[in-house]
Amino acid sequence: MPSLGEFQRIDRYFKPLAAGFPGALGLVDDAGLLSPAPGEELVATTDSMVEGVHYLPGEEPSRLARKLLRVNLSDLAAKGARPLAYMLTTALPRSAGEGWIAAFADGLRQDQERFGIHLLGGDSVSVDGPAMVGVTAFGTVPKGRALLRSGARPGDVIHVSGALGDGALGLEVLRGRLSGLEPGHRRHLADRYNLPEPRLELGRRLVGIATASMDLSDGLPGDLPHICHASGVAARVETARIPLSPAGRAAMAADPAMERLALSGGDDYELLFTAPPEAAETLAALASELSLPLTPIGLISAGEGAGFVGPDGAPVGDLKGWTHF
Amino acid sequence: MPSLGEFQRIDRYFKPLAAGFPGALGLVDDAGLLSPAPGEELVATTDSMVEGVHYLPGEEPSRLARKLLRVNLSDLAAKGARPLAYMLTTALPRSAGEGWIAAFADGLRQDQERFGIHLLGGDSVSVDGPAMVGVTAFGTVPKGRALLRSGARPGDVIHVSGALGDGALGLEVLRGRLSGLEPGHRRHLADRYNLPEPRLELGRRLVGIATASMDLSDGLPGDLPHICHASGVAARVETARIPLSPAGRAAMAADPAMERLALSGGDDYELLFTAPPEAAETLAALASELSLPLTPIGLISAGEGAGFVGPDGAPVGDLKGWTHF
Repeated sequence: MPSLGEFQRIDRYFKPLAAGFPGALGLVDDAGLLSPAPGEELVATTDSMVEGVHYLPGEEPSRLARKLLRVNLSDLAAKGARPLAYMLTTALPRSAGEGWIAAFADGLRQDQERFGIHLLGGDSVSVDGPAMVGVTAFGTVPKGRALLRSGARPGDVIHVSGALGDGALGLEVLRGRLSGLEPGHRRHLADRYNLPEPRLELGRRLVGIATASMDLSDGLPGDLPHICHASGVAARVETARIPLSPAGRAAMAADPAMERLALSGGDDYELLFTAPPEAAETLAALASELSLPLTPIGLISAGEGAGFVGPDGAPVGDLKGWTHF
Repeated sequence: MPSLGEFQRIDRYFKPLAAGFPGALGLVDDAGLLSPAPGEELVATTDSMVEGVHYLPGEEPSRLARKLLRVNLSDLAAKGARPLAYMLTTALPRSAGEGWIAAFADGLRQDQERFGIHLLGGDSVSVDGPAMVGVTAFGTVPKGRALLRSGARPGDVIHVSGALGDGALGLEVLRGRLSGLEPGHRRHLADRYNLPEPRLELGRRLVGIATASMDLSDGLPGDLPHICHASGVAARVETARIPLSPAGRAAMAADPAMERLALSGGDDYELLFTAPPEAAETLAALASELSLPLTPIGLISAGEGAGFVGPDGAPVGDLKGWTHF
């Protein structure tokens, strides 16, 4: 429900983001058109970010825009989908002026180009409260081949891509709570929180290999139960196998209290997936090709619920998923 | 980014809304699948509603849910699309408890059944501020046949469905500003504001007849310029031709100040469309078949901008589109 002033804003800042995607109708319509190619279907996913809940107040608008796109692209990655287009909703206080919008749109532009996705349409409203920005993203997959949460089977191995914990530790860095680290490590962790890397290429390559897949936004203890629930299986993770980055290890060395956070924190946007044991060699080759570690961290079995065991084999009972700060 | 408590909420209140639509994956995944039939494409549209901006604080959640769906269905109607599925985003203060959610979901259920649309997925977040609810709705159209804003041509006749002004007058009734009316008229106007009727059947039947189409959410003076802008044409409306309901006429008789509001107010969700003059007979037959007035109110010409002329033929210069209250 854009007002007439919105008209010019759309023309100036958002229309360029729809160029090259005919279905966006130049953003002059109140709808967009999506036509998957024959043999393909669409994956749709939506994630919103609220100021003070999902991002720090005063966040740089360009970076916020990029993170918003990336958390949605990460959901497409988890389904094995190729990015196509997205709808944008902004609910902004009137204090967000033209400079804010211009920087926000520029962030979208940067990551649209990088990840090959186009603006399809959207809605902008005013709020008298914290800002909220949301994206509904669309990708394409060969029909019937999307990676779902529901395909994990007893005997499957649980894997994660990359290193976990960096996102949560990055937030600690940004909040000034992790100061005993060298600048390179601080920067690495903060970057991982601010600009997660959607694992799009990995996701597409996992089609036909992985039995279940999702992205890690809330942390392993918060997210793994979703695969168990959807697949009707149990999961057991060995915490000692959870892969950490050098910066993550340094943070834990500097402050042992960070270990728990590293193992359970959110905002990593790595892929969590299951695959039969026979896929081990294929996955090792894929990891090498993509220069991205794919680490087995546990096993799926019959039953229900996600359990974690420590290096001594004893259950680790109180790992908690990410909760709103 | 649902928290674990969200898990149960989804199971209890939202999963039933996804039943019968396989692409929703039982709402246990972080994405949904959309597969238009061969020869069809998808229309996607999104509209959000903010408490205190687009609906009155304290609005009954079931009715809010229905209006939210309807304003999005109205956009699908304007494109000539058949409803398919929708993604839901809720940003609610923590004070919105289980009763609120249950009533909201029940409203969605009622109108899903009525209009034949299914919940595909969504996102729920907490906000420390006014509530916001948003829908991204999907419909299907035969490929290349969607009604766009951009097809109006000089010589086309501008039409509207139903009666205009009822939505804006209904809001006046609800705010206690229009008291000199009989109860039947008051009820009619309030109902039209609270539960607009998406003109889905009309929209589908206009495919191949209308040259441009949109729904009236912001009021004629706010919305008609969008068709002019998208089509690169000018429009001239004779205000005396704008169709009014008996209740609308009564409101204007009771308070002459309401006339301007009736002509320029928003929230009617009627269709505004253009068609060549030769379509007049077809449209008259369609109006009769659907028991829905389709009224010619003006003409498209070469040029730009939307103008309004009064009964005396003089321009009416200051009709303003709907602005946030």
